[in-house]
Amino acid sequence: MSAEKTERQLAVATIADLLDGRWAQRRRHTRDLCTDLDLVSLPGQPYPEHRARVLTSLQKLADLGEVQRAFPAALGGADDPGGNIAGFEELIVADPSLQIKAGVQWGLFGAAVLHLGTEHNHTEFLPDIMSLAVPGAFAMTETGHGSDVASIATTATYDPDAQEFVIHTPYRAAWKDYLGNAALHGTAAVVFAQLITRGVNHGVHAFYVPIRDASAERDDSGAHPMLPGVTSQDDGHKGGLNGIDNGRLAFDHVRVPRTNMLDRYGSVAVDGEYSSPIASPGRRFFTMLSTLVQGRVSLDGASTGVAKMALAIAWRYAEERRQFTGADPEVETVLADYGTHRRRLLPLLARTYAAQFLHNDLLERFHGIFSGEHDTDEDRQDLETLAAAAKPLSTWLALETLQTAREACGGQGFLSENRLVGLRADWDVYATFEGDNTVLLQLVGKRLLTDYGRSTAKMDVAGQARWVAERAGDMALHRTPLRRASQSIRDWGSRARSAEELRDPAVQRELLEDRVETMVEEIALRMRPSLKGTAAERAAAFDADQAELVEAARAHGELLRWESFTAALAEVRDPDTAKVLRWLRDLFALTTIEKNLAWYLVNGRLSAQRARTVTSYVERLLLRLRPHALELVEAFGYGPEHLRAEIATGVEAERQAEAMAYVRRQRATGEAPISEKHLPAVTDGSTGPKVAQPV
Amino acid sequence: MSAEKTERQLAVATIADLLDGRWAQRRRHTRDLCTDLDLVSLPGQPYPEHRARVLTSLQKLADLGEVQRAFPAALGGADDPGGNIAGFEELIVADPSLQIKAGVQWGLFGAAVLHLGTEHNHTEFLPDIMSLAVPGAFAMTETGHGSDVASIATTATYDPDAQEFVIHTPYRAAWKDYLGNAALHGTAAVVFAQLITRGVNHGVHAFYVPIRDASAERDDSGAHPMLPGVTSQDDGHKGGLNGIDNGRLAFDHVRVPRTNMLDRYGSVAVDGEYSSPIASPGRRFFTMLSTLVQGRVSLDGASTGVAKMALAIAWRYAEERRQFTGADPEVETVLADYGTHRRRLLPLLARTYAAQFLHNDLLERFHGIFSGEHDTDEDRQDLETLAAAAKPLSTWLALETLQTAREACGGQGFLSENRLVGLRADWDVYATFEGDNTVLLQLVGKRLLTDYGRSTAKMDVAGQARWVAERAGDMALHRTPLRRASQSIRDWGSRARSAEELRDPAVQRELLEDRVETMVEEIALRMRPSLKGTAAERAAAFDADQAELVEAARAHGELLRWESFTAALAEVRDPDTAKVLRWLRDLFALTTIEKNLAWYLVNGRLSAQRARTVTSYVERLLLRLRPHALELVEAFGYGPEHLRAEIATGVEAERQAEAMAYVRRQRATGEAPISEKHLPAVTDGSTGPKVAQPV
Repeated sequence: MSAEKTERQLAVATIADLLDGRWAQRRRHTRDLCTDLDLVSLPGQPYPEHRARVLTSLQKLADLGEVQRAFPAALGGADDPGGNIAGFEELIVADPSLQIKAGVQWGLFGAAVLHLGTEHNHTEFLPDIMSLAVPGAFAMTETGHGSDVASIATTATYDPDAQEFVIHTPYRAAWKDYLGNAALHGTAAVVFAQLITRGVNHGVHAFYVPIRDASAERDDSGAHPMLPGVTSQDDGHKGGLNGIDNGRLAFDHVRVPRTNMLDRYGSVAVDGEYSSPIASPGRRFFTMLSTLVQGRVSLDGASTGVAKMALAIAWRYAEERRQFTGADPEVETVLADYGTHRRRLLPLLARTYAAQFLHNDLLERFHGIFSGEHDTDEDRQDLETLAAAAKPLSTWLALETLQTAREACGGQGFLSENRLVGLRADWDVYATFEGDNTVLLQLVGKRLLTDYGRSTAKMDVAGQARWVAERAGDMALHRTPLRRASQSIRDWGSRARSAEELRDPAVQRELLEDRVETMVEEIALRMRPSLKGTAAERAAAFDADQAELVEAARAHGELLRWESFTAALAEVRDPDTAKVLRWLRDLFALTTIEKNLAWYLVNGRLSAQRARTVTSYVERLLLRLRPHALELVEAFGYGPEHLRAEIATGVEAERQAEAMAYVRRQRATGEAPISEKHLPAVTDGSTGPKVAQPV
Repeated sequence: MSAEKTERQLAVATIADLLDGRWAQRRRHTRDLCTDLDLVSLPGQPYPEHRARVLTSLQKLADLGEVQRAFPAALGGADDPGGNIAGFEELIVADPSLQIKAGVQWGLFGAAVLHLGTEHNHTEFLPDIMSLAVPGAFAMTETGHGSDVASIATTATYDPDAQEFVIHTPYRAAWKDYLGNAALHGTAAVVFAQLITRGVNHGVHAFYVPIRDASAERDDSGAHPMLPGVTSQDDGHKGGLNGIDNGRLAFDHVRVPRTNMLDRYGSVAVDGEYSSPIASPGRRFFTMLSTLVQGRVSLDGASTGVAKMALAIAWRYAEERRQFTGADPEVETVLADYGTHRRRLLPLLARTYAAQFLHNDLLERFHGIFSGEHDTDEDRQDLETLAAAAKPLSTWLALETLQTAREACGGQGFLSENRLVGLRADWDVYATFEGDNTVLLQLVGKRLLTDYGRSTAKMDVAGQARWVAERAGDMALHRTPLRRASQSIRDWGSRARSAEELRDPAVQRELLEDRVETMVEEIALRMRPSLKGTAAERAAAFDADQAELVEAARAHGELLRWESFTAALAEVRDPDTAKVLRWLRDLFALTTIEKNLAWYLVNGRLSAQRARTVTSYVERLLLRLRPHALELVEAFGYGPEHLRAEIATGVEAERQAEAMAYVRRQRATGEAPISEKHLPAVTDGSTGPKVAQPV
């Protein structure tokens, strides 16, 4: 380690508390629990064995009472939704397959019973779910319908004579697909289906459906036999998460009792009469789906967590690994001292901090709603939008960080013993499950457009006309800087003064906020004329703006991250620590602006001169942060025992020390050979001569 | 498939010929060979079995005479370096592990003997290498030294009494690492070591070293016992390419005969006297390394190939998969008709075409040199620079395309049966092996700086001073558009006229070329003052510009791609095909410019108004290319039998057809339930009422 460059001056414990947030204790408890060798992944283990192993680990978690905190205290839970998620997120330390299998069991299968069912459902089904006596699948997605849940084709038709629902899969595209626990271990499933009674389709509802006969012997693969009418097909090997037995399910007129319907938001009386506390089918559908937001919330936290792990591994290695000599011809340079290396890793470090602070805010909100502390329709909508913005950004952040970290560690990064590739493989699917990232950002974009529509709708007609004329009638506004006069003066001033200004949080906020607002406004204005067009014209106009709408949603998410980071800064008392964290926040803001520099230039928000300042200030921040980066990753709280990466144990520093000692010893004893380069050249050049011999 | 949108009008065979290039026949032959079930990967196969399987496949290739074309005809080869590489690249169709294991055996181990050895080495070693009687490792990289080959620490010390070299690993960091065939199958290795004779270190040379006793029984893992003094350690499970037994090797004073030195560029006489046809140790080192350029050339081609496979899979699925309804509420929209989907995939299609055309040019050059047709020092340097620019760009393109394709296929993309995730996992390491991508781009950047230095060095002193004053003394040049007057007029003209101009190849070339030249010039000017500073100042100045130098090298690579694409266009006669390929070339140019839009704006090369035109022209091109995209991926020549991806077989179209037929049948028979949404609402809203019943 280059002691002269790496300083120890930050209040690491304070930063760790800030990062770990309200449920820090549960996070740390679970992290440590995950060092249990019964729970951790074994790289290269064949997937049938990995699946069996994860099932055993899951049982251990259940037996230890680690995974039931979200459930009602009356049934042995703790009524602690926030603490439950915080702990759940940390299970990745052991094995992401373990986390996701736990998520399938308690976060999806169990949570569906909890949130979509009523007391009789809870009493009947939850105890066995909580104890893992009944492993179950969450059967929502179909081969033919993923993100478009409203269009699933499985049906649940009520038969009043038998007082049963008939669950049926009408064609191949309607098979339930990608379901954890479906290929082998599940003995029941919560099945989402179009509820049909008295000839009317009341839309998607959920039903508790036994799928395997738990009383019969398991076969070699660990599966009980299927119940009559239920077919299962193994999804087989996957890109990652191979500790989970994903599979498909099809139902051929499978009957379940009327009371197996999860009936909080809709129920069918004995005679087949449908009733619901929510009259609008659309609102009812979205309310039901909104209860499942915890999946997205927890993936956001887990993704931020894995980005932290990747940075902890890669930066530790960057501080120890040496390659090529620099100013000193005798000592090779550590990777952390290379500009390209800092450029690759430190902006991701800043973004990961920002993502963690946003996640902490998201989790607090989630807890507020699901604990019932403040649970209104508006709260739920806000939470959904927030989760829909956070989850895509953090899952992509995780993938980018894992990949960058892996490349930054070279060949070492490719070995499974250094953990990065396994985590990367597991993380792959996070970008498309629990809502495809692009589709989620489109939802956020639509919400931004709706909010924008509402705010303009409040103006009177004259005001609106004036407002539209000012904005849409002439693009000049967007072509000139908002504050042109002052900026052009600043631009010709010193770079220091410009950098000074970019450090101002108010300036950062304005730049980030302005971009979201302007993009949304422009899309709204472009779409307006087409609203009077044909369906095809409307669809074409809507489609044409989707890429930009997704971009606006992403910008919105980055703004939220910035706000959470900035709010967190206010809690740091130690001045050195506060200063370094401010640099890190600035780095996040400036690299976000830099990434979108073209937008700021095209839209006249930054002059060319000031745009150059953005990059030079970023470079300055990277240099300033360099000596503190090790402490900043240490504050994540993942030690070698959690990371389980050979290169994050100090082994590289030992190897370097051994090599240097060898060279020193050789020199001291005079045993080192002379380099040919240091001999006087006595050669005639190109015709195959002998080269100089030592004199 | 949406027949109304997908047109069949391109001369697909012509495009295929253009893409497959000079060795089209060998490419197609190998592709078809790779449908042999003995050769193909089996997803989820445990890695010990996968390793054994790939060894068997390798033997089959050797027995078929498929992999020896690069070797001398006298020894049973074909003296056909270009055709050999073209075929080799296509082995990925079967299994990238098979390709890379073949690459280790014949492209590294065998090629080192061929290119670094002389006739006695060839006669002695090549026949067994070619037949795979001796599987071998290419022992260059050490745990402590990857890209910095000159600093490896393994020594080969000549002992004149015994007429032997003593190969020795002085410490742990000097263990050879990541070597294919080292963990199990290799019975020999070409070991790179510092050659020491008569007390002088003559730098890195290569030695043929037996490592396992092939005459003794294999153990359970398939390995013969190690020879005395040689230690092997398994690298274990990896992020991909698990059909290859990568491992480490250490040597404890292992002796080999003097004649085991590969002595083309340096030899040691019986008495220990060193001689070399190249006097300068630096030039000698680089000449030796330059013979290994074929690794980078072939990875460039293989990476372009895998990007083609990924696009063929994802676009086929995009044409069949439907999700959400659009203008027509009865028919769901195919993914290919979504703007976001086109934005994700079509720019990658354009870049992949460009990369393939550049690769074809690269391979022609490679063949010219290694067949001896035109082999000068300058040719070799150019080839090295070209390969160093192409390989990073195409390996990253492959990773980005595989990942984008996988996400674009949603959950299907994550299943191994659809191939993308397995290829992605295998491809991971391509970004850092055969030269870390970032380090390679730094080499390209240095070459650009050198060339720039040479061109300025030719000026006389007065000219140079004037030139520097013009450029460095005032940044005003870079702040104003190069052709400001004309552009500002155009900017206020119609968008159509601007788009017209961006279509002009001369304008595209200027924009791409100008960026490379200006970036290099700016870096050179910034570095100049520091050249007079201390070593530390020089190192700091150099380091400060590395990120930008890498960016300049990348821009250089994109320019080369554009030039190859444009040159290839000239060969297309069919006017419709030429038109569509021109759109594709334009899309490549414009998305490249769009990615770097900030640079063009900051440096005054594009006005804000014209910058907006770039994006709107891109959008127009995406719409135009949409109907032709299927034919453009079909021209890659990878059919379902090569892709082995379930979703690229038409199965999704069948499922969609079945679902639509079901719905139509239900409607026709009047069996379809009425949707609750279509009933008159008779409800009092929020207090839990019954909803409407059918009348």
